[in-house]
Parts: sequence; structure tokens; C-alpha cells
Amino acid sequence: MRLLNILSWFIFLGLCFPSLAQHKALVFQSDFGLKDGAVGAMKGVAFSVSDDLRIFDITHEIPVYNIWEAAYRLNQAAPYWPTGTVFVSIVDPGVGSDRKSVVLKTKSGQFVVSPDNGTLTLIAESLGIEEVREIDEAKNRLKNSEQSYTFHGRDVYAYTGARLAAGVIAFEEVGPKLKPEVVRLTYQKPVYKNGEIRGNIPVLDIQYGNVWTNIDNKTFQNLQVRNGDPLQVKIYHENVLVYEGKVPFAKTFSDVPKDKELGYLNSLLNFSLGINTGSFSNRYKIQSGADWVIVIRKNDQ
Amino acid sequence: MRLLNILSWFIFLGLCFPSLAQHKALVFQSDFGLKDGAVGAMKGVAFSVSDDLRIFDITHEIPVYNIWEAAYRLNQAAPYWPTGTVFVSIVDPGVGSDRKSVVLKTKSGQFVVSPDNGTLTLIAESLGIEEVREIDEAKNRLKNSEQSYTFHGRDVYAYTGARLAAGVIAFEEVGPKLKPEVVRLTYQKPVYKNGEIRGNIPVLDIQYGNVWTNIDNKTFQNLQVRNGDPLQVKIYHENVLVYEGKVPFAKTFSDVPKDKELGYLNSLLNFSLGINTGSFSNRYKIQSGADWVIVIRKNDQ
Amino acid sequence: MRLLNILSWFIFLGLCFPSLAQHKALVFQSDFGLKDGAVGAMKGVAFSVSDDLRIFDITHEIPVYNIWEAAYRLNQAAPYWPTGTVFVSIVDPGVGSDRKSVVLKTKSGQFVVSPDNGTLTLIAESLGIEEVREIDEAKNRLKNSEQSYTFHGRDVYAYTGARLAAGVIAFEEVGPKLKPEVVRLTYQKPVYKNGEIRGNIPVLDIQYGNVWTNIDNKTFQNLQVRNGDPLQVKIYHENVLVYEGKVPFAKTFSDVPKDKELGYLNSLLNFSLGINTGSFSNRYKIQSGADWVIVIRKNDQ
Repeated sequence: MRLLNILSWFIFLGLCFPSLAQHKALVFQSDFGLKDGAVGAMKGVAFSVSDDLRIFDITHEIPVYNIWEAAYRLNQAAPYWPTGTVFVSIVDPGVGSDRKSVVLKTKSGQFVVSPDNGTLTLIAESLGIEEVREIDEAKNRLKNSEQSYTFHGRDVYAYTGARLAAGVIAFEEVGPKLKPEVVRLTYQKPVYKNGEIRGNIPVLDIQYGNVWTNIDNKTFQNLQVRNGDPLQVKIYHENVLVYEGKVPFAKTFSDVPKDKELGYLNSLLNFSLGINTGSFSNRYKIQSGADWVIVIRKNDQ
Repeated sequence: MRLLNILSWFIFLGLCFPSLAQHKALVFQSDFGLKDGAVGAMKGVAFSVSDDLRIFDITHEIPVYNIWEAAYRLNQAAPYWPTGTVFVSIVDPGVGSDRKSVVLKTKSGQFVVSPDNGTLTLIAESLGIEEVREIDEAKNRLKNSEQSYTFHGRDVYAYTGARLAAGVIAFEEVGPKLKPEVVRLTYQKPVYKNGEIRGNIPVLDIQYGNVWTNIDNKTFQNLQVRNGDPLQVKIYHENVLVYEGKVPFAKTFSDVPKDKELGYLNSLLNFSLGINTGSFSNRYKIQSGADWVIVIRKNDQ
Repeated sequence: MRLLNILSWFIFLGLCFPSLAQHKALVFQSDFGLKDGAVGAMKGVAFSVSDDLRIFDITHEIPVYNIWEAAYRLNQAAPYWPTGTVFVSIVDPGVGSDRKSVVLKTKSGQFVVSPDNGTLTLIAESLGIEEVREIDEAKNRLKNSEQSYTFHGRDVYAYTGARLAAGVIAFEEVGPKLKPEVVRLTYQKPVYKNGEIRGNIPVLDIQYGNVWTNIDNKTFQNLQVRNGDPLQVKIYHENVLVYEGKVPFAKTFSDVPKDKELGYLNSLLNFSLGINTGSFSNRYKIQSGADWVIVIRKNDQ
């Protein structure tokens, strides 16, 4: 009797606290938009796998087929989610081609289900590659979906992500282990040399019109800039000079007058350009992508 | 003592696993958009009914008052959700008129709370009508909301859907049983005759610009088309020819060169038209709705 | 043994039903939009605090820096959520300035985490101020985020809201108690005098183009209007007459012919202007904000 009671407690604890083992979080991102039923169908498939899943979204408004932006948004949000979280990212211009469907396990213990088409570039750099497996679609595919060739997002990615997040399959059951590599997009990395820093404009902070760069805090510190110091900034698109100007480095927007430009460290601690209650990207026609380069130096050098 | 323990276990299992009985999933769709507080208020009403509910969305971006598209989006997503799921669909140009507020139980065991204005047309066809009940608003209405005549979505539909999903009321308590019928919108059904198939363009795959038809796989098979075979396609709007062309039938987009047209079976296994990394609907000005007709035949016939 | 069993039951009930104590609902609103990873990162921070949280959204499509609309949307949705719900509202043009970061506890027992910049104006009026505390950022800030000055939404507001909703901290642990006041925006309140009512147009029902006013049902009743009675309506923008017309008061849209104007009580029981299946705001170029005034009287007066 005593034994039964103790046993009961263990079973009880295991049953009531599956979350002690894993959080069961499944986080979607895609270029599907929110105007049709595609995202709703994917979530239905996931919820049908397990009603214990906690289902969230990063965004479904990635510009259509824009793999670079998918890589960026994933890397912007994923580090803030706990170990064991499963991300499903579907921006897949090559659906049906020979690009592989994979699951990346990062060194930080998160999982990303995605076509291996460059989407994993940035998260592989920031969180590290622990292991990569190819999805075995013979085993990991929604039942009765074999005739459908075009909605991998629902039938393979959402389904596999849900089963992994819910603990229905272990990571090893995803499919065969590949080399610990992912397809990488190329872009200008931040470099300090001769008193200036070169970097890339990976993405705009579109809602506010701020220009974000990939120049991280550590690289930026080489300039030894203090609050209020002026910076000289040049921006090139396909090697053509698009913007040249002086901006003060500021801790926050309200440190400069309204409508004035500033340089600052954004929420990712990367160097960025903004205008206090205005749009830097609109005023100077700045866009983002692999073909945009920014060069900054202290004005007095 | 032993009895108490055994009893405890049963109570315990019942309490800890309400989900064994039902999934408690509540899924919303509307034409409210996501820019104001309406969807947030509806979810507050639902969550106030029961914090056990699992609340999801198909879309809130149905074009305003577009009942046909509401019918389509509902039918696109609902079949992927488990038995017992309660859908609440609110596209209601006739709010306050004599259209009935109903709950449809499908033969597949799902529930749809909606004005009976045509929204249920397609799901009634695909999942079947098990039973229809009219909502008794005297019993199923948020308390203290009697003076409000214009937000049925929140006060009646969300409230009733939440109570049904949470098990606070049984389906029988929704209100009186009606004839097992729903208001149906008319449209061209897929028909094969004399070597050609006629069908409707119910909706566009807007994010990508693909043109989806209601020509299902089984009807399509009458043409005995193999991958790579050319198809002759004509599209009419209000009986006027809008597009005429030849496209190859392909398994997937990457089977044709970039910028080239193709016919394929979409994720619902319906015949569709697309362009590899392009927009068929933009290039040829194709829209969707009940007044669009498509005719296809094998080119060699 | 018997004691242990009884004790077990109490522990068991406490563990299995934390929701008896609180609902653990966390509801976000912001002007971030849904196109980037910001909202996804905030939810990751919240979910990392506790995977028991129930996370929802009012909207993330508040026009950028529009504090007035933030106040309105919050007040539109919050009253429909249960006691104990924690709202996090981030529309913060003064991020980094000396505006205070606060948590408002309403008399109805809800909590709002927000910059104290006017966002709390309307909810303070409708639900009342129980207590206001300033967030002590030394204690209530995501670890390792001290170097970031620009994403308070994620590092302070989402983090503090999540800890409060999850019961990790009590309200008293948010930070020091302030005077029970919030920063208030000024606007024309509804006033009845000499047979006419003056009020404000706080917001449009944008999806449908209806014009909502702040003239509540009780104030409106002073006109002693019955269904079908004609109303004389004038709308001023910055004291310039923009619209003048007669509209019937109706219970619901379908009480007037298609394309005809009507006055009605909206879902908040406030006087509003609409067109049956049309857009009043588009037809007459009506916008919303503190500088819009509406005057109505019975036509026969």
C-alpha cells in the first residue's frame, strides 16, 4: 500500500508535469500571409498531433520567396525562446525541387524545421549547429497526403515539427543524420580596418523606418565612440553611393531633437540608423539585402 | 481506505485529463481585420467562459462582407482540425436582419457557429450535415449585452462557441433543432463532358498569385493527363473569354522553367494554374468568385 | 497514512489547479506590426518566464506612435477579459525619455503594463484606478539586457507582465507605489445642452468605415430619439465644418436601404454613423482623433 502510494506520486508527477520534460512549444514562420486558410490548416494538423502543444507565430508576412528575410526574422526571435522549442519556417521557392527538408538542432538546444535553402544561415551562425537531420518523408508525413506535392508546409513541416515538439518522435526519428552543415547565403560581414567599419544592411525595422546593420556592439567598440560623438556614414547599393552624412551616436531616440538623425545600438545591440519620430529609410531611400553595404567612421579621424 | 484510493485515482484521471473527453479547441474566422480591438474583445469573452479553451484563428482578413470567401477559407482549414473542434465564423452583412444564427454539426463531428447566410455552403458539402440548431439568444448571450444590436460576433457567436467548446453547454442546449439544411450559394460545379472539364475559380492563392479551381483530382483524372502533357485552358468572366492558353501539367513548380506557366494539383488536390516564381493572376488579370468559369481539355483532343 | 493521503490531496489540488488562483492570461498590444520578429521575441521572453501562461493579442497594428488609438483599443477589449488578466501595451514614442514605466491596477482587478504616456487615459476612466506602481527596472528586467536601451517592450514590459501574470512576482514587487494617477490625454467629452449633444470621434471602425463617437447611450437618451426618427448631424475638424446631414436613427444596418446612412448604437453602446454595406468615413472623408468634434440634435428641434 505504501509502495503503491509512492508509485502513485511518481506517476502523478510525471502525468501532471509533462512540461518538466519539455515545454511543447511550436513556433511558426512563413511567407503565406494571413489572408487565407493555409496557416489555419497547418495549426489544425499540429493540434491534431497533440492538444498539449503551445502554438505560436513569429510572422507569416515574410515577403514571398525572400529567404534572406526568413533567415533574419528567425534569428531575431529564436534566441528568446527556451531550450527545446521547435520552430517551423516555411519560405520555400524550391518546393518540389531537390532542396532537402531538414531539422537543425542548435547548440543551444532549439530545433528548426525548414527547407535547407539558406533560411538557416544566420541561426546556424548565432546559435551553432549541434546536428542536422533530413526529414524521412516516408515516415514523417501526414497520413493520406501522399498525392499532394505542393503543401509541404502542412503535410511534412508542420506535421514533423508538431510530433517533435510533442515528444511523439525523438529527434533521431526525424530521419538520417547529415553532415553538420547548412546551405549558407553570402553577405558582407562586419569588419574593422584602418579606423572604419564595413558591414551589411540585413533588414529594415520597417514599422518605424529604422535602418539596421549587422555591425555588432563588439566590432562597433573599435571606433571608441561616446554618446554625442559624430559619425561619418556612407551607404552603398551595388557599389553605388546612395547616402553620405554625419549623425551623432546616441543612447536613445529622445537624445536628439525631433526629425533629426541618430546612430544607436538597437535591441540586438547592432549599430542602426534612425530619425527621432521619423523614417530614415523613407527619407534617404535605403533598402536592405545582401547587396547593401554600410561604412562608418568617427568624424574626427 | 483502499476504495478511497481507487476512487481518488478515477477522480484524479478525470480532472487531469479533461482533454480525453474533448480538445476544447475554439477557432475563429471573420472579416473584422486585426487593426482594432474587436477580435481581442471576442477572445476575452471566450476566455472568460473557460480558461481551459485553446483559442486559434483561421483568418480575420476575409474581404468585408464576402460570404463566398468565408465559405472557402472555412472549408480549406476545418477538415484538418480534430473532431469536436468548434469554429466561429463571422462574415455577416445581414447582422440584425432575419438571417438565422445557427450551429452546424458536421458528419465528421466538428461544429460551426455562424450566421446561416451561405458561409456553410462548402463545408456542408465536404463534411456533411449531421444536425443544425438555431441559437436561442434568450439563453445563449453574454450577460448584460441585450442592449447591443450590432456585435453578435462577440455577444452571441463567440460566447456560444466558447460555451460549446468548453463543455459548459451540450450541443442540444444551443437551441431548437432545425431541418438539416443550410443556405447555399450557387456556383459552377466541376463537370466532365465530351473530353473537357468545366469548373469554377473559387479563390486565388493570393499570396503567390496562383489560380485555384474547384476541379477535384477525381474529375481531373478523366482527362488522363500525365506529367508534361499540354493542356488547353480557357477562362471566362461573366461569359466573356478572358484567358486562352496552353500550359503543361506538372507535378510541381520547379518542373517548369522560371517565369513559365503550369497546371498542377494544389494542396487540396484541386487543379490550379501558376507560374514558377511568378503570379498567374496578376499576369492575366484573373480574379475569383461565382461568376468565373474555367474550361480545360487535353491539347491533342 | 491517512494524514499523508489528505495532505496529498491538498497538494494535488493546488498543483493541478493553479488556475483556481489566477487565469495566467497575458494580452499584448503594440504598434510593432506583424512583419518582423519583434512580437515573436516578446512572446519568447514571456513563455520563457512560464510555460503556463496563456498568451493573446489585442492588435499589433496600432498606427506608429499613435497613443490615442492605443488608449482606445485597450479600452475596447480589456473590459471583456477576466479579473487578474495582465495587459502589456507598447506604443512608446518617448522610449528612453523620462516617461515612467508603470503597472496600473484597475478597480476591476485587471493590470496594464505600459509607458505612462496617455495610453492609460481611457481605461483609467472606465475601469478606475486602484493603484499605480512604477517598474523597478533594476529588479524587473530580462537578464543580460542591460546594454540594450531601445527594446523596453521585450526586456522590461513583456518580462514584467509575464512575471506578474504567472505569479512569479506579486503586484507589490513591481516597484514603488506612485500616486493613483496616470497621464491623461484631453478630448471633447460627451455633453448634452440646449437640445444638442457634442462629442468626439475617438476612432473609426476602419474595417467597415463606420464612424464611432464617444457619445454614450445615457447621454444619447437625452435626445429622446426613437427608431426611425431623423437626426441632424454636424462634424467639425479643427473647428471647420466637414459634414452636415440628416440620418435616421436605426436599431441595425438592415433597417435602412442599401447605401443609405444611419445613426445607431455600436457594440460599445456609443452613438455611431454608418452606411448599410458602405463606408461613411470614405464617402464623407471623416477621420478620427482628439481634434474631431460631432454635434447631433433631433431634426424637429
